[in-house]
Amino acid sequence: MKKAVQIGGGFVGGVIANDMSEHYDVTVLDVSEKVLAGLKAKFPKLNTSVCSATDEAKLTAAIKDADIVTAGVPGKYGLKMMETVIRAGKNLSDISFMPEDFETLSGLAKENGVTVVPDIGVAPGMSNFLMGRGAALLDEVESAIIYVGGIPHKLVPPFNYQITWSAADVIEEYTRPARYVKDGKPVVIEAMGELYEKEFPKVGVLETFITDGLRSLVNNINAKTMEERTMRWPGHVEQMRVLREMGLFDETPRMLGGKEVIPRDVACDLLFPMWKMDPEKGDRDLTVMQIEVAGYKGGDYVTHTWDLCDKFDEKTMSNSMGRCTGFTCSIFAQAIDKGLIKEKGVIAPEKLAGNDALYEFVIAEQARRGIIYTETTKIQKNVKTRR
Amino acid sequence: MKKAVQIGGGFVGGVIANDMSEHYDVTVLDVSEKVLAGLKAKFPKLNTSVCSATDEAKLTAAIKDADIVTAGVPGKYGLKMMETVIRAGKNLSDISFMPEDFETLSGLAKENGVTVVPDIGVAPGMSNFLMGRGAALLDEVESAIIYVGGIPHKLVPPFNYQITWSAADVIEEYTRPARYVKDGKPVVIEAMGELYEKEFPKVGVLETFITDGLRSLVNNINAKTMEERTMRWPGHVEQMRVLREMGLFDETPRMLGGKEVIPRDVACDLLFPMWKMDPEKGDRDLTVMQIEVAGYKGGDYVTHTWDLCDKFDEKTMSNSMGRCTGFTCSIFAQAIDKGLIKEKGVIAPEKLAGNDALYEFVIAEQARRGIIYTETTKIQKNVKTRR
Repeated sequence: MKKAVQIGGGFVGGVIANDMSEHYDVTVLDVSEKVLAGLKAKFPKLNTSVCSATDEAKLTAAIKDADIVTAGVPGKYGLKMMETVIRAGKNLSDISFMPEDFETLSGLAKENGVTVVPDIGVAPGMSNFLMGRGAALLDEVESAIIYVGGIPHKLVPPFNYQITWSAADVIEEYTRPARYVKDGKPVVIEAMGELYEKEFPKVGVLETFITDGLRSLVNNINAKTMEERTMRWPGHVEQMRVLREMGLFDETPRMLGGKEVIPRDVACDLLFPMWKMDPEKGDRDLTVMQIEVAGYKGGDYVTHTWDLCDKFDEKTMSNSMGRCTGFTCSIFAQAIDKGLIKEKGVIAPEKLAGNDALYEFVIAEQARRGIIYTETTKIQKNVKTRR
Repeated sequence: MKKAVQIGGGFVGGVIANDMSEHYDVTVLDVSEKVLAGLKAKFPKLNTSVCSATDEAKLTAAIKDADIVTAGVPGKYGLKMMETVIRAGKNLSDISFMPEDFETLSGLAKENGVTVVPDIGVAPGMSNFLMGRGAALLDEVESAIIYVGGIPHKLVPPFNYQITWSAADVIEEYTRPARYVKDGKPVVIEAMGELYEKEFPKVGVLETFITDGLRSLVNNINAKTMEERTMRWPGHVEQMRVLREMGLFDETPRMLGGKEVIPRDVACDLLFPMWKMDPEKGDRDLTVMQIEVAGYKGGDYVTHTWDLCDKFDEKTMSNSMGRCTGFTCSIFAQAIDKGLIKEKGVIAPEKLAGNDALYEFVIAEQARRGIIYTETTKIQKNVKTRR
């Protein structure tokens, strides 16, 4: 049996490793013995080994025999980990959400004859891949929009929101100015900006606002309009705007209630317990995503749309966001290892989307795992007059 | 010239004293020399003297020569102050918002041949007087509702609210269960309950919710439905509900941002600076009030409505809520001193409202000060069938 190593034993790391173990002998590395013990109890098939993602020597040794490496580590350790894997000459499928530009390691990956697919979860990940797919199918892209949200499957007052990923990143999303593309130019707006409501298949009306999630897409896709939008149940954004405007998301310490505190820490302590998703109490998450890429193909105006509405899995009692993320990373790891991705370097998912065989493989493998991406093509004939 | 003493030199105390000084030689008492110096600078006509409202001997001496006493002290000192004034044999018009039942001092006031009108600002105060007036004009009261709100004259995002009275009392209003009368019985509901929107003359649509302001009216008015409702610009209550539900109005200390704090203190430190009304920056307040008393007079169904929509005064740069409150206290003090109120005891304003001469005097004196209460009577003839 071929060997795979998963770096990082968090919740999604476990999903990746377990999924890989269908075809590979998998070893999971994590700095915490406790985390690994928990993982082993859940998935007895997995091998585990204590190893830090930033310990270059130990990590190099640990992946020495691997045919393929997958990873999901905290963002701040991502670049260092990636560099170590590349220097070890191993192919990598990675979901670590690093702040740096991973393309800076692309030269090194080429030198080492290595294929790295970074940011390859659901969003970023499938969102990039499908936006790239839409662009590859068109001659000119007018508009490319990612709508994505992890939300509770029903309203849970007062916030109608529960956390399905990193809690701290949620507050970041409500505060960090967001970059997008308007009239062909990069634009920055205040967080939670350009709010509107939109109806999504199987869910109904959600509110959507621009978030700072385009990352590599800004450089790799040429579109007049490009946005990543996050979805919430209607009303949530107004609540978050009030909390932000009253200073609760500020990071500068100040005197509150007679003590010097960081307001954002106060907000997190108040909000996170209320945002906790507890499947034992009946909480269930939905991952709702729509990628809409529209533009010209010859004289026609064509809109390619992919819809995903995935729910918490009752059989494995595991949340949708984790499964949608982890499965994607595993599928791309297997695609690399099968030779479906021949390019060397650190290759953003959107750059791989012209590859029909890869596209068919990815969509089929997602479907085999119950993750259904529905593709719709709308063609308005002969819209373009001769220029 | 007759002599008057005002106990308490706060903002509204200053309004009362200055208004009284049109006809009286007025001395203002306050525990703070600084407060008195500020008042003297603003109103040179006033005499001032340092004296605590709870220093029985000193207060008794200070009011010895007064023909009439007015007062506005913090609620917790109210009852003690009132008792001292009564024992000194002085008539009193008072706006101190005490938690205790002032009617417990009524016997003592009668023994001392003293007239005390308590809770005699705008609401409580004119609200009680006009609800009492409506009830006095009817045979049976079906419904008696006070709508009252101190709001900024225009929307001031994000809260569309600014404080025109006690900041701490605002939070109390958002948390303390509210008592009202439904089907003739006292009922208690959660704070900010039974929210609806309603249009008010000269202002437009405001949201209104039940607050715990009926006080003595519950005992003194016999009505099937009786409510005090507070008004805000639409949307504010939903914001406050979220803050309350996330625990920010709790008074139990807890660990937040790594420090033990009282959440409500944190909320106050965040909100009050944002709710500060700054006339220098163009902030202006409105006092919006409507008293609606409906019921049977003979066979007719009659609705008596009084409307007030008063704005910040540009000439004196003083806020409406303070003027509406202070003028009322002064007007009633003068009514007592003129012999328009002959009853002895501590008499809630609603009990005085059958007195036509007093009613005419009060409405005319308010109008002379620019505070216009518009009275409307709607009569549905012969609604009652013979029982």
